[in-house]
Amino acid sequence: MLADLIFSTPPIETVFSDATELRLMLAFESALATAQGIAGVIPAEAAATIADICRQTNWDTESIRQQTLLAGNPAIPFVSALKERVRQEHPEAVHYVHQGATSQDVIDTVLMMQLKQGLVQCQADLNQLTNQLAILAKAHEHTPMMGRTLLQQALPITFGDKVTGWLDGLLRTAERVKRVENECIEIQLGGPVGNSVSLGERGSAIRARMAELLGVGNTPYAWHTQRDRLADIAATLGILNGSLGKLGNDIILLMQTEVGEVREGAADGKGGSSSMPHKRNPVSSTFMVAIAHRTPGLVASMLGAMVQPHERAAGAWHSEWPVMRDLVRLTAANLSHANELIRTLEVDTERMKQNSTVPD
Amino acid sequence: MLADLIFSTPPIETVFSDATELRLMLAFESALATAQGIAGVIPAEAAATIADICRQTNWDTESIRQQTLLAGNPAIPFVSALKERVRQEHPEAVHYVHQGATSQDVIDTVLMMQLKQGLVQCQADLNQLTNQLAILAKAHEHTPMMGRTLLQQALPITFGDKVTGWLDGLLRTAERVKRVENECIEIQLGGPVGNSVSLGERGSAIRARMAELLGVGNTPYAWHTQRDRLADIAATLGILNGSLGKLGNDIILLMQTEVGEVREGAADGKGGSSSMPHKRNPVSSTFMVAIAHRTPGLVASMLGAMVQPHERAAGAWHSEWPVMRDLVRLTAANLSHANELIRTLEVDTERMKQNSTVPD
Amino acid sequence: MLADLIFSTPPIETVFSDATELRLMLAFESALATAQGIAGVIPAEAAATIADICRQTNWDTESIRQQTLLAGNPAIPFVSALKERVRQEHPEAVHYVHQGATSQDVIDTVLMMQLKQGLVQCQADLNQLTNQLAILAKAHEHTPMMGRTLLQQALPITFGDKVTGWLDGLLRTAERVKRVENECIEIQLGGPVGNSVSLGERGSAIRARMAELLGVGNTPYAWHTQRDRLADIAATLGILNGSLGKLGNDIILLMQTEVGEVREGAADGKGGSSSMPHKRNPVSSTFMVAIAHRTPGLVASMLGAMVQPHERAAGAWHSEWPVMRDLVRLTAANLSHANELIRTLEVDTERMKQNSTVPD
Amino acid sequence: MLADLIFSTPPIETVFSDATELRLMLAFESALATAQGIAGVIPAEAAATIADICRQTNWDTESIRQQTLLAGNPAIPFVSALKERVRQEHPEAVHYVHQGATSQDVIDTVLMMQLKQGLVQCQADLNQLTNQLAILAKAHEHTPMMGRTLLQQALPITFGDKVTGWLDGLLRTAERVKRVENECIEIQLGGPVGNSVSLGERGSAIRARMAELLGVGNTPYAWHTQRDRLADIAATLGILNGSLGKLGNDIILLMQTEVGEVREGAADGKGGSSSMPHKRNPVSSTFMVAIAHRTPGLVASMLGAMVQPHERAAGAWHSEWPVMRDLVRLTAANLSHANELIRTLEVDTERMKQNSTVPD
Repeated sequence: MLADLIFSTPPIETVFSDATELRLMLAFESALATAQGIAGVIPAEAAATIADICRQTNWDTESIRQQTLLAGNPAIPFVSALKERVRQEHPEAVHYVHQGATSQDVIDTVLMMQLKQGLVQCQADLNQLTNQLAILAKAHEHTPMMGRTLLQQALPITFGDKVTGWLDGLLRTAERVKRVENECIEIQLGGPVGNSVSLGERGSAIRARMAELLGVGNTPYAWHTQRDRLADIAATLGILNGSLGKLGNDIILLMQTEVGEVREGAADGKGGSSSMPHKRNPVSSTFMVAIAHRTPGLVASMLGAMVQPHERAAGAWHSEWPVMRDLVRLTAANLSHANELIRTLEVDTERMKQNSTVPD
Repeated sequence: MLADLIFSTPPIETVFSDATELRLMLAFESALATAQGIAGVIPAEAAATIADICRQTNWDTESIRQQTLLAGNPAIPFVSALKERVRQEHPEAVHYVHQGATSQDVIDTVLMMQLKQGLVQCQADLNQLTNQLAILAKAHEHTPMMGRTLLQQALPITFGDKVTGWLDGLLRTAERVKRVENECIEIQLGGPVGNSVSLGERGSAIRARMAELLGVGNTPYAWHTQRDRLADIAATLGILNGSLGKLGNDIILLMQTEVGEVREGAADGKGGSSSMPHKRNPVSSTFMVAIAHRTPGLVASMLGAMVQPHERAAGAWHSEWPVMRDLVRLTAANLSHANELIRTLEVDTERMKQNSTVPD
Repeated sequence: MLADLIFSTPPIETVFSDATELRLMLAFESALATAQGIAGVIPAEAAATIADICRQTNWDTESIRQQTLLAGNPAIPFVSALKERVRQEHPEAVHYVHQGATSQDVIDTVLMMQLKQGLVQCQADLNQLTNQLAILAKAHEHTPMMGRTLLQQALPITFGDKVTGWLDGLLRTAERVKRVENECIEIQLGGPVGNSVSLGERGSAIRARMAELLGVGNTPYAWHTQRDRLADIAATLGILNGSLGKLGNDIILLMQTEVGEVREGAADGKGGSSSMPHKRNPVSSTFMVAIAHRTPGLVASMLGAMVQPHERAAGAWHSEWPVMRDLVRLTAANLSHANELIRTLEVDTERMKQNSTVPD
Repeated sequence: MLADLIFSTPPIETVFSDATELRLMLAFESALATAQGIAGVIPAEAAATIADICRQTNWDTESIRQQTLLAGNPAIPFVSALKERVRQEHPEAVHYVHQGATSQDVIDTVLMMQLKQGLVQCQADLNQLTNQLAILAKAHEHTPMMGRTLLQQALPITFGDKVTGWLDGLLRTAERVKRVENECIEIQLGGPVGNSVSLGERGSAIRARMAELLGVGNTPYAWHTQRDRLADIAATLGILNGSLGKLGNDIILLMQTEVGEVREGAADGKGGSSSMPHKRNPVSSTFMVAIAHRTPGLVASMLGAMVQPHERAAGAWHSEWPVMRDLVRLTAANLSHANELIRTLEVDTERMKQNSTVPD
């Protein structure tokens, strides 16, 4: 879609590229073999070979994509491809590839690593945004403007009050994002039926080591069909996008011709109209509202997908993959629009004063 | 609807009754006057009169209900009715009723008090449920059963493993519920445009005192159009219902005639069929799944309603009222069904063993 | 909730009262016995007795409500109660009560009869609304006002153009409502597993006769787990509420103090503020927007509930009951607010002219 | 995402490629100029030049993508690029490019043309599916199997009954898809504020001609902020995916090891497990359920986006672009999985018989 950039950012696309996904799958298998090698569960030499091959970069992603349709998930053809290369290099080592793990272990852990990268980016962007807002609130703590309830002029406030409202909600949600990054980014490693039996007696140690190697949290139980952590991340992003949508919508309302109290900063070609060259349209704020329209349905999708049968779901699990990615994409884009919006916002304090002193 | 009891419980209906709602509105106005009296902002005598009248119980709720349609919210006719009685009792005191507050202060604070009661009930019920599950997990830590992935028999697990999975997710969400009760139940008090100017210099002290009197948290800023706390509570309940839906669905799947590993406990008339007397249907677990189907859309509704314009929303705010109530109702009902389910669950360890030792 | 009247109307509450629900259940059983009597499948005398008892009105609904929690649905205790009375009157007739039918036949057909009543009411209200809008559009076909895109003043239109836009969408949806009433209101009668075997060779004739007696459409197949008709009705109501939300939101925007081109008509106590007596707030339009916030999540709930297993669902089916009722309630309320809004709308043509001739 | 092919198909990706989108934008401008030339509103020579240049294929889509972020939508940089080429070719003709139209006219009409192509593909696939199901139903009209309610064995049906149920719902929805293709695929042409004034007196004739040239329906009014048609298409696809989800889920349930009545056809590598080579997992049916989990939230997103202010929305409109595309993508993928599923379905009539004659 030609309008794709509204709904994602280049850095977040990198996080969710096929290349990154494959690299993280390789990192998972490498960490597994390494941890099992250290634990003495597989031969050190086999572990080294596997880790070595996992550093290779020239994989046939297109073939993995195609085979996914038959296999049911991308981990199956990926593991086959990896085994094939290990077999050629070191035939005995092939039995130690992916040992004790299951497809969902790879896929969930990779998703978690991607989510972590996404959350880290979002936190940096949110931090930048709240810093900007704090400065803006301070700058306008005495700028009078009209407060409006049910879209009617009510009584005066300051523009600082309004910005403080935006900031206040976003600071709370910044804490929420930090919390889910800390609490919910966890390794998945439970083997075929999630009970870790396939990993043997050293299973706990292997999982702990892997979590460390991969930079994700450790957790005693597999969560193959306990999806509350993903739902929590999704909901937190949903809340963040709701707050950003409120901010963007306020700007659009304040930019109304009849109100005219703020404007999105002019840039070459920004906010023009194909038919009315004199207009200055809201752009970044429009995108923020657009994104806020999309996220609630995606969060609902994740909550609905929590009802996952037995030890692995047939469908609900698969539905999460694009939805979680879209949520992070949208959040990153929303934050990018918000930072751009605040960075270039023009505040017409004269108009604010005028509107607040001449009540209707 | 004749089936209403599936979707709520008598105790939660009490929390959300018109009588409770009115009582809490009175408590708000009483606390406001009391706090303002203590702060020396209104005469002590007036405060006492108002508090006194707020203890009266014979109010015309039907009239308030009817007037809400014209007024736009129930606080307006409520405050009128209160003022009328104060006027009769103590004409000068009428000016001190609801002083400095706005309708949304009353309505939001009352909702928060109801949510608190609801969350407290849910926590007690969830605690009972996790206790039951811990006992069940322990009792079956060595009971072999078949693990199933994508609804195919895979490898053996224990029934304890399965119960531990349910418990693990619910324990995490119990923490989440506790967190939102601590973090998100806050007083609303900001006056007409949320900047607390109407409350005067003693505004902060008044708000702190009121929060204490009403048993809710204090917060420096009004959050009239910053709805992240409500969204957070809603999402947390959504996650809880998702986990309960997974539990209920697992039971339904295990109860299948062809699987037959568990049964809902027999009670007189429970799980019968109007046309097939020999059947034993899942009942509590069916209700749990039904509720889990309803909650994601309600959470999405709350997230979508976060985009609230300026200092008070025209519509999005109002939409929250029934949705938050429904979410708490459904959660309470879901927990009630879950406790009943686990309390009376019959586990057929023989059948579990048989299914797990004769792989297909 | 004291604000309940915002979200429903008294006539629609009558349609969904326990009394109506029970009366329609009795109508179902009466029609079944009557049709089976005419078909010669049960004795005429038994049919007459059953129909007779189905005319009784003094049933213990509270007991049915309570037993639903054990039985799983209200049809089971209802049929028991009916059989009990028939047994007392005419012991041999008891075997012919509910013969060949299943709980879902009763419950689905009753819901359909309620939906029909609801759709008929909504069509009348929608007809009234489109008539009002047609008159308004005509009256203002030459009233100039400013057209606004992305909430910026763009180029002049007429107020008639704007009203025609609202009308155009609503007329299309009026056709949709008519279509679903015609296509989707169908009898449910398939017996325990939906294949109509329990109804015997005369099953088709019995179903046709019953459909006629009950005033709903006939359909050759039971649709116990094919829920597209309900989803279609739900979606249609969702679309209608979306269009009404757009109308209400436009009014709110036009009522802004800075725009001031329309006002909701003044009525005693309408649109006041508990803290700012000088304000005139949008009320009906606010309610319309509030309802439009709630309906999308409810439609999603119905669509998600379409995945119903085998011959009868355990949960998804039950989740539909309150959701469909809420959708009809909300639609009726929305139409009521819309009719009130347009009936009393004050149009400030002077302000419209001024805003459209003095571009900013 | 390596699993992308689960959620789309190559033919539908072609419909939604940047190349197609650009080609259709060019088709729109070409048709506009041609129709205006025929109507005598612009010089025939200018019209010919514009149409000529619109046949060029080497456009800088990346530049359009990038500029969209500043411009607010892709039509603005696209029209600029088109004008630039026309200017070079025939300077006087540049004033006739896009004359009287607005960005939303281009974007909405292009989306409608893409939706039409998508709906046509879906109808063909759905037709193939219902044909397959009709054959399957006929083949098994006498194959006994157990009917199951609330996932309990109830009474025997035939496999033909079950397939007929799937078919019955899908045939109704095939009519719905046909209806929305006929009723809802319409040209958008209203100019800057939707009242067609910019198109002059010949506006109606121009629009009719354009609709004919572009193969979409004609409509007297612009629908810039009346989005019921898109919502109707979205809901119809939501219903279709719900029915397909039910079908897929039934297959998964029937494939359970303990039931074993059907199997997805074996293909090389299909349905394997990375850790348990002996398993045969549901694949196509799993994908169908996954998609059915995603669509309700997307439909809700479209319904929520119907509340579009005044003459052009700031955000709600933009949110529709990816959502409508995703809905068509998912539907096409779902139908593809369903056709593959039914084409290769293995029915174990022996097991069906056995399960239905030995009631538990």
